Amino acid sequence: MPQYNAPLRDMQFVLHELLNVEEVFKELPPHADTNRELVDQVLEEGGKFASQVLFPLNHSGDREGCHYDRESKTVTTPKGFKQAYQQYVEAGWAALSCDPEFGGQGLPLTINNSFYEMLNSSNQAWTMYPGLSHGAYECLHAHGSEEQKQLYLPKLVSGEWTGTMCLTEAHCGTDLGLLRSKAEPQADGSYKITGNKIFISAGENDVSANIIHLVLARLPDAPEGSKGISLFLVPKFLPNADGSLGARNPIFCGAIEEKMGIHGNATCQMNLDGATGWLIGQPHKGLQAMFVFMNAARLGVGMQGLGLTEVAYQNALVYAKDRLQMRSLSGIKAADKPADPIIVHPDVRRMLLTAKAFAEGGRAFTSYVALELDKELTHPDEQVRKDSADIVALLTPVVKAFLTDNAWMATSECLQVYGGHGYIAEWGMEQYVRDARINMIYEGTNTIQSLDLLGRKILMDNGAKLKKFGAQIQAFVEEHGTDESMSEFITPLADIGDKVTKLTMEIGMKSFANQDEAGAAAVPYLRVVGHLVFSYLFARMAKIALEKQDSGDSFYAAKLATARFYFARLLPETAMLIRQARSGAANLMALDAELF
Amino acid sequence: MPQYNAPLRDMQFVLHELLNVEEVFKELPPHADTNRELVDQVLEEGGKFASQVLFPLNHSGDREGCHYDRESKTVTTPKGFKQAYQQYVEAGWAALSCDPEFGGQGLPLTINNSFYEMLNSSNQAWTMYPGLSHGAYECLHAHGSEEQKQLYLPKLVSGEWTGTMCLTEAHCGTDLGLLRSKAEPQADGSYKITGNKIFISAGENDVSANIIHLVLARLPDAPEGSKGISLFLVPKFLPNADGSLGARNPIFCGAIEEKMGIHGNATCQMNLDGATGWLIGQPHKGLQAMFVFMNAARLGVGMQGLGLTEVAYQNALVYAKDRLQMRSLSGIKAADKPADPIIVHPDVRRMLLTAKAFAEGGRAFTSYVALELDKELTHPDEQVRKDSADIVALLTPVVKAFLTDNAWMATSECLQVYGGHGYIAEWGMEQYVRDARINMIYEGTNTIQSLDLLGRKILMDNGAKLKKFGAQIQAFVEEHGTDESMSEFITPLADIGDKVTKLTMEIGMKSFANQDEAGAAAVPYLRVVGHLVFSYLFARMAKIALEKQDSGDSFYAAKLATARFYFARLLPETAMLIRQARSGAANLMALDAELF
Repeated sequence: MPQYNAPLRDMQFVLHELLNVEEVFKELPPHADTNRELVDQVLEEGGKFASQVLFPLNHSGDREGCHYDRESKTVTTPKGFKQAYQQYVEAGWAALSCDPEFGGQGLPLTINNSFYEMLNSSNQAWTMYPGLSHGAYECLHAHGSEEQKQLYLPKLVSGEWTGTMCLTEAHCGTDLGLLRSKAEPQADGSYKITGNKIFISAGENDVSANIIHLVLARLPDAPEGSKGISLFLVPKFLPNADGSLGARNPIFCGAIEEKMGIHGNATCQMNLDGATGWLIGQPHKGLQAMFVFMNAARLGVGMQGLGLTEVAYQNALVYAKDRLQMRSLSGIKAADKPADPIIVHPDVRRMLLTAKAFAEGGRAFTSYVALELDKELTHPDEQVRKDSADIVALLTPVVKAFLTDNAWMATSECLQVYGGHGYIAEWGMEQYVRDARINMIYEGTNTIQSLDLLGRKILMDNGAKLKKFGAQIQAFVEEHGTDESMSEFITPLADIGDKVTKLTMEIGMKSFANQDEAGAAAVPYLRVVGHLVFSYLFARMAKIALEKQDSGDSFYAAKLATARFYFARLLPETAMLIRQARSGAANLMALDAELF
Repeated sequence: MPQYNAPLRDMQFVLHELLNVEEVFKELPPHADTNRELVDQVLEEGGKFASQVLFPLNHSGDREGCHYDRESKTVTTPKGFKQAYQQYVEAGWAALSCDPEFGGQGLPLTINNSFYEMLNSSNQAWTMYPGLSHGAYECLHAHGSEEQKQLYLPKLVSGEWTGTMCLTEAHCGTDLGLLRSKAEPQADGSYKITGNKIFISAGENDVSANIIHLVLARLPDAPEGSKGISLFLVPKFLPNADGSLGARNPIFCGAIEEKMGIHGNATCQMNLDGATGWLIGQPHKGLQAMFVFMNAARLGVGMQGLGLTEVAYQNALVYAKDRLQMRSLSGIKAADKPADPIIVHPDVRRMLLTAKAFAEGGRAFTSYVALELDKELTHPDEQVRKDSADIVALLTPVVKAFLTDNAWMATSECLQVYGGHGYIAEWGMEQYVRDARINMIYEGTNTIQSLDLLGRKILMDNGAKLKKFGAQIQAFVEEHGTDESMSEFITPLADIGDKVTKLTMEIGMKSFANQDEAGAAAVPYLRVVGHLVFSYLFARMAKIALEKQDSGDSFYAAKLATARFYFARLLPETAMLIRQARSGAANLMALDAELF
């Protein structure tokens, strides 16, 4: 009953009309030939794969879940998952944005990003299998030895093997400095790794022939805390030099978790009992190496939020047009029917437009960041690379937390559009809400994202990165400040820009005296920055839509209406957030823990 | 692993120190003897029943769910549910606030209300069985014939039989005017009722010997729409005159729904195939009669929200004190441990205090309304009864929508406190979130509540009921306006009071010209009114706490800190809500439905 259509028109608007990616790609040597036609063709095919192959497995995958066999310690994924993965590999999707040196197609990450939106809309649980593999690919590509790369990357690029990240242990998730898994050096240069990991997504599965685990553990001489953690490559099957599979490595799944959602993805307890592994990068520098993975994963989680927002919106919209219930308060709208379709009711529209604006704003936001990431990685000018790297670093935690919070709100609003049917499994909507909840937690909780943004990315460099991003906004405001038709967008954009500047300075001053002030302000602060980004991008999109509103293409009228809704109904959240962020630490810290 | 302790101390604070119920009960003839000792004793025993009998069945009930047998068309509730219900009946809990004429104990509804908070904290799915029965009791008590009352009420009062409300059909939930079930008059004064109902909570179950369905259907001569609906009493088994069970009536469960949560309660499709029923009240006046049930149910759903908020808070608090992760930003707090308990972190405290403030504010709010309901029903002075009835009518939709929205936010924040463990079923937290989601939907969606508040309860009588409530606030503000120590509470209370007045007038004016303006403002408007109530009650609670803060009982220090947190962190939501409510209908209605 649920449905999904790839939002190609809006993707094209964002990529070509808002971001003009073809022109940007021309400046990036590896992507100079990636023209509009190619982009559109890839996304159209990707959309077909997502909607035709993955989407039909989403609801059934949720109902069936993964199965763990205690005897063989293996996991069976839901019916159809393995076949879909084979199709994915055969069509070459895993290789889309990978390095051609290892068999990749070398396309920009921006395209992979849009492709992942569609995968996540179609089936988040399934998408985590290739998604985590892609993260493992990027980490190994950045930090692996030449030998490791030659042996493992081609298999990860093709998708024949998948990858995981093994960080969490029962007593430590956020605080990895506490981890206990141990790595004992062996005479041959390898290590024997022993320990127990939990919450390992896709840790054991039947979709791929081999699983490359990236495992955090401590060397015998490791310093305490987070500076004594090293990263190891631990394959499920030890590969022979020719890439064929050798002995089974003693890293086994001991159980899988019963969860609120993403039932189609196995969340595994992994037990390493002297498993053979190899160091990746430098000893004790495992967290830094893993951060390549983490940053990619954080953007990826933001995409999960976006994907769920879009598919929830599409389904709620269909329901709102179909369902007949009550008459419009302002007079009968469908006289030939026993009642009006519920899309006539203002509050149903509020719920739909909330999801629509979060989806369209999120799509513009993540595409914007993905393009900056392509520039960071491949632009010939070092200063451009540095500037783009700063923007990506600044906005990565915002993509992760803002979009996943938004998805939680949007999927819940879309469920509400269905009334009682929203609560019933067969309508599909409640799954989106359950799936959306994990995205606010994993790859660093949204609180951790907010501390990363405010502490590390902003206060630690005296706001330099934020100023860099602010300069883009300032330029846009100045360029269009005298354009009467744009004033409804420019005025609130300039206003929120000023408020972010003042708020940042105020929190910086307070937290200089007491670091708890930063902790007390960080979560609302991050959402204010998210709204700054959305205001900027909706203003830019409105500019384009205003110019083309007489083109005869009603797409632009819809875009304008969505932008106006955003400024009228969603941006006002900042009035709450700023008050909360400014209210300080005292109202949180006053109560003794024993008196709670 | 989850736990629950009845919050008796805070209940006593609300009932005795805030509301002084003993004094109020003295004015109510049927309750004049209900003294503090009795109240406390009942709640203590009720708390034991809830935490010792019901709570242990909550998680297992969720995992097991209800089972439907197609052959016998019967439902089996989760293991232990039936036995717990028997204990409930044997202990006389069903009769607590029922009419002594029919075997009830005749205690005030205020006490029943607090009892239900504990039941809902312990096991919402189970509590729906007796909860709906109590609604059926109230409806029949108000509208049944003397004969109906004599035959059915003693069985509902004892709990031997349960009751349901059969309203919804597949094509109509909110819009009951569309319903199609038919009632054919029979020569003996009974009716044969035919039709199909959906979403009937507890519609079939094994906890009770008989089920009394209150069914909405149309008589042959019924006018179209909502003015042609009559209410019928349709028992599962036709009772003999002596109350023993006779023939099985053809009202059968055809299926139960797979849902997001409340798995322990059977959500039934009910098929009536010429089932025998009897008219309750007047022909075509079924909706009015059912509204007695609905209003009780709406307060009851608010209690479900409150119950979940409290139990989620209690569990998140235990976790936050136990879990060691990271060091406090402002310096090590637990030097003897490898990390600090996460309750040292400002944002963890923000999440906990959000739930705590929503629980304590909600407890004060529902107890306040329940006491007004007792006055409405039993006060000897007609004017007092009328005033109380107005307050109850005004605030019923606010209790329902505000508390259930709050519960959705609070349970989600409490889940977040757990990090990844919050997403795992065995920790119990994700169930609270899933269970909480239905409360925003059933018994009238929260949008419907907001339209009831703004349209029917406020604009339709030119704000008379709101002014009556506002006069109480005004009196409090004037009484304590010059008290320096209270200014931190009185100032924002007076401010939000003024804002509600202005906002109400503005929306009233706009919706006079265009009714969609009311529909566009209603949802944020209701939450603003909810905050007005919370501000008033937290200010009153703060007044008491200030007076007793030197008493040596640290309860009052905690209450003050919670009140301060509420004003600093939660009340600012109104800054967003008022902007949204004032933004008007145009931003919602501009977009043509086809262009969404």
